[in-house]
Amino acid sequence: MINVTTQEAADLLRQQDNVLVLMHRSPDGDTIGCGYALCLALRWLGRKAQAVCSDEIPMQYRYFTEAAEEQTFTPQFIVAVDIADTQLLGDKLAGYEDRVDLCIDHHGSNREYAHYGLVCDQAPACAQILTEVIRAMGVPVQGAIADALFTGLTTDTGCFRYASVTADTYRTAAYLVEQGARNGLINRLMFETKSRNRLELEKQALDSLRYYCEGQIALICITAEMMRTTGAVDNDTEAIPSIPRQIEGVKIAITVKQKGERLFRISLRTTEEADASAICSQLGGGGHKAAAGCSYEGTLEEAVRTIVTLSARSLGDMV
Amino acid sequence: MINVTTQEAADLLRQQDNVLVLMHRSPDGDTIGCGYALCLALRWLGRKAQAVCSDEIPMQYRYFTEAAEEQTFTPQFIVAVDIADTQLLGDKLAGYEDRVDLCIDHHGSNREYAHYGLVCDQAPACAQILTEVIRAMGVPVQGAIADALFTGLTTDTGCFRYASVTADTYRTAAYLVEQGARNGLINRLMFETKSRNRLELEKQALDSLRYYCEGQIALICITAEMMRTTGAVDNDTEAIPSIPRQIEGVKIAITVKQKGERLFRISLRTTEEADASAICSQLGGGGHKAAAGCSYEGTLEEAVRTIVTLSARSLGDMV
Repeated sequence: MINVTTQEAADLLRQQDNVLVLMHRSPDGDTIGCGYALCLALRWLGRKAQAVCSDEIPMQYRYFTEAAEEQTFTPQFIVAVDIADTQLLGDKLAGYEDRVDLCIDHHGSNREYAHYGLVCDQAPACAQILTEVIRAMGVPVQGAIADALFTGLTTDTGCFRYASVTADTYRTAAYLVEQGARNGLINRLMFETKSRNRLELEKQALDSLRYYCEGQIALICITAEMMRTTGAVDNDTEAIPSIPRQIEGVKIAITVKQKGERLFRISLRTTEEADASAICSQLGGGGHKAAAGCSYEGTLEEAVRTIVTLSARSLGDMV
Repeated sequence: MINVTTQEAADLLRQQDNVLVLMHRSPDGDTIGCGYALCLALRWLGRKAQAVCSDEIPMQYRYFTEAAEEQTFTPQFIVAVDIADTQLLGDKLAGYEDRVDLCIDHHGSNREYAHYGLVCDQAPACAQILTEVIRAMGVPVQGAIADALFTGLTTDTGCFRYASVTADTYRTAAYLVEQGARNGLINRLMFETKSRNRLELEKQALDSLRYYCEGQIALICITAEMMRTTGAVDNDTEAIPSIPRQIEGVKIAITVKQKGERLFRISLRTTEEADASAICSQLGGGGHKAAAGCSYEGTLEEAVRTIVTLSARSLGDMV
């Protein structure tokens, strides 16, 4: 992969027509925001461009996605946004894995699969990088483009909360709001809107909360029964692992989610005093030191007992 | 009250010594952040200064409050920060109500009780105004000063989430982080740390959730019994009014909190389709269109029935 600067990426994009912009599967606000922002920027320059994804784009993003009507053309230039690895393209876009001309990404783990790459792992959101690229393309960052980029920035930083946020992130946010990004509306839609079903699921999950090792370990369960009775969907469980993590004194926060009759997905979040990845690797999983996961086959009781025992042992303690 | 500019306020402050900085009762991150930041800035200039409050400063702010050891002196100049009305001084500081020389505030409802005033109701946090004042004083914004100001900015904006946040707010955040404010740590402490008691209270509050008017009204109760059984403190109830407000389709979110055997504090949060202030004024309260409050004497059932009836009527609907 040939690394390019922001200006080089912008110049390259300005020279193209019939551009396909790839977003990753299970799309989040950053990949969708970047996909649509780049697509709209190219169209403003009079080019044909289309953002595509293997999975459906959730309706909650329609406040900017509706600005881009579908265009059909034979792709001549392929761009990937916020995609570290071509495995994340998903089934429908798998055919493009060897054909990506330009990759714009913020993951340090980027597999360098593209011909040209603009990868900055200092940026907490791909949208922070793309904002500069679009400015360098000479396209006015306004309307749906500003909304899309702000969405990427705010969703990938937990509304500017995470430690990965830098002065540049806040400065990019200031710029986008000045250009008309509707920050109040976007943050409300992304962070302050819960369905009744989702709230009911969170309530039941809270009821399942248990502590171990004098409160150093907290565990929450999400069973298939809870999903069924509350009518919640998979997307509704996203924020649940953060519930046990927020509790004062908890070093290891565990969420056990039922995926099949005897299949469970275990997520761990840890403070600096424990290594989530080391614990999960004992069950064939992995991840980062502060956040990792694994699967477990058996009963719920067995899953809980196993992960709690491994976690307690890692704290040098007994259950 | 004589309105002054940022530079005039800074010049005025530079001329003083033995400065007492008043914070409001039931202190929040903004008044505490501003009180300590101004106090530390004056001390950097070699002046004696002390920030004071009628209530105790919660321990969670010690990452910057511990930078200011107590000083005793006879006050010669009194400054109030983030205080709209002298009634908010509380018992211990009530004696200063007619003696405030300078008020720095961001409430449009400021009662103009001070001799000089720097009041900007466009700023979503008093810390945004004070950051500029301290810069104009020629004091380096760094260390505990930067942490204190960032704390004010992030807590009064719900971590930069509220609609009141402007481009200037994000720009101030960028500046403070550049000057060394520990944004990751501060946001984690302020927004991602809950005591077990607080979580238990939120669980019980969720259990009390009821809907009215086909889900357009949601109501949560916090009883004295809940406070007692969970061991939660007043500070633990702060985030609860945001729970019913987040629910999809809810136009009026009500929180009823017991303050005495027959005394209840009612908080309303509304979408654009309802006027919280107009509803609460019917019970002798007030506030803003989107957030208001009032008190109610009677039983819990009466309090709930009354506020739900008034709310339903304002939606042009019947319970």
